[in-house]
Amino acid sequence: MTQTDTMPIPDQVLEAAARIAAHAHITPILQARSIDTETGTALHFKAEHLQRVGAFKFRGACNAVFALSDAEAAGGVVTHSSGNHGAALALAAQLRGIPCHVVVPDGAVPAKLASIQRYGATLHHCAPTIAAREAGCAQVQADTGATAIHPYTHPQVIAGQGTAALELLSARPELDALVVPLGGGGLAAGTALAIQALQRDCALYLAEPVGAADGARSFAGGVLDHEFVPDTVCDGLRGSLGAINFELLRTTDARVLTVDDAATLSAQRMLLACMKQLVEPSSAIALAAVLGNQALFAGRRVGVVLTGGNVDFTALADLLRE
Amino acid sequence: MTQTDTMPIPDQVLEAAARIAAHAHITPILQARSIDTETGTALHFKAEHLQRVGAFKFRGACNAVFALSDAEAAGGVVTHSSGNHGAALALAAQLRGIPCHVVVPDGAVPAKLASIQRYGATLHHCAPTIAAREAGCAQVQADTGATAIHPYTHPQVIAGQGTAALELLSARPELDALVVPLGGGGLAAGTALAIQALQRDCALYLAEPVGAADGARSFAGGVLDHEFVPDTVCDGLRGSLGAINFELLRTTDARVLTVDDAATLSAQRMLLACMKQLVEPSSAIALAAVLGNQALFAGRRVGVVLTGGNVDFTALADLLRE
Repeated sequence: MTQTDTMPIPDQVLEAAARIAAHAHITPILQARSIDTETGTALHFKAEHLQRVGAFKFRGACNAVFALSDAEAAGGVVTHSSGNHGAALALAAQLRGIPCHVVVPDGAVPAKLASIQRYGATLHHCAPTIAAREAGCAQVQADTGATAIHPYTHPQVIAGQGTAALELLSARPELDALVVPLGGGGLAAGTALAIQALQRDCALYLAEPVGAADGARSFAGGVLDHEFVPDTVCDGLRGSLGAINFELLRTTDARVLTVDDAATLSAQRMLLACMKQLVEPSSAIALAAVLGNQALFAGRRVGVVLTGGNVDFTALADLLRE
Repeated sequence: MTQTDTMPIPDQVLEAAARIAAHAHITPILQARSIDTETGTALHFKAEHLQRVGAFKFRGACNAVFALSDAEAAGGVVTHSSGNHGAALALAAQLRGIPCHVVVPDGAVPAKLASIQRYGATLHHCAPTIAAREAGCAQVQADTGATAIHPYTHPQVIAGQGTAALELLSARPELDALVVPLGGGGLAAGTALAIQALQRDCALYLAEPVGAADGARSFAGGVLDHEFVPDTVCDGLRGSLGAINFELLRTTDARVLTVDDAATLSAQRMLLACMKQLVEPSSAIALAAVLGNQALFAGRRVGVVLTGGNVDFTALADLLRE
């Protein structure tokens, strides 16, 4: 997508919180005695799967849409995510009363497309390649004057995603660590900014699938690694870490914890059995990172962002039978 | 079980709230825009599936256990529920530091027995008949001096169950109707008392399975009907309406709405898909009653008690494949 990615600053998270306040839910913070006992930690789950459209993605999309000038907004917005960001952008555009275009690759899940259309967005089909998706977006931009809102490198998206941690840290000032999933890095970078905005001495851990560990390799090597083929059940974390996100995160003490899919699915089951909460694997990975690193988290007060709950029921049925 | 069932009064719900405050969760109240839009109502879900042991049953059990005198408590407590009440009583007894005995019929679900044992209760196995269960309880009482805590006719259990509605109506004074499931009638009777205690002009609807509609028949005929064989997926609502519960409810304007199992399972799916909440069929039936009576509830502000979330994953997997 054609856009200029300027580095967001901590104050933009505070501005985002004010900007989205009329539209986004202040999601509850859940706790589970049984999981605390098992892990030896005090876990505070920020329930973003109860956010509008069922994912934290609404925060960033909403902030980006409402940060547009009236002139920009008149042309509408465009993106090429067929997942939660697409639905989130569609709803945000609907709330502002502007057009939304979503470029979707052939073969995308029909249920997700229906969700995007329910919020009034126009779908544009393309071949299932990155090049075709980028070209589709460029074409929509040329035809309509729409502004591209990238799912995780747009600075206002990053700032908006940071509002989840801002709410969590404001409600639970005693937290000494946060754990969030790492995919493209929008939530991770936004969370780092939120910690800075509040000037908290709070460690940040990023849970990343072993099968899409470009983030871990990038931080270890000091160079962005985006030559990899993702192989993970965490469909929300298959994208490669964004350049701006990498630059922002490498200046912090954020640490990547890699998690294999079996541990993630086990955590997803635990959230359903012990907390009655349905979350995506891309979300359960954060709890799995805690469960897999008990010595690291023992005795600490840890915030965990449950990022989304849009789960395909057939896949869930398979999980429950295991 | 041998006990004297005196009719509880509204003030006992207020006393129960104070008695259990140190032990029970104040559960969240959830809303779902998508379901409100579909039903044309404003629904406020009291999330008792997030209560300790995963069900509202902890409220009544906790109130009954902590209402015992020290002398009574020393002998411990006994019941013959192998479901949520058994686990709830076990935890309540553990919190007070007294023995708990649970008489369980052969063939009871191993996962539920494990849950009861996890809270330190002693299991006593018996044949799977009501007579054997009653005899088992009487034997434990004779042997140990334990006090019987019936799952839904014990007056302190009824008063304790009423605290869920008390919290809901206190937090949402604008509600003009409540919907709760009807099985043995502990929650229903307690909810009626809570409405009276707060002197609210709030209608009460009782959602009952078509396959266990002894309540509907009893209210229609004016005589308690307990000659029936339950046939419903709502395993928590198969018991017959208690005599004291019937007497208490028939003096109110409470109205029974019968619901078939297909509608209940559809509501259970909806709660998972739209609200990411895992609840038992015995709990989803309350939403199903709203969905099946839209003209009745349209334009109203309705409280719905989500009573429990202890779901067998194999059964859930079957549901998701339908």
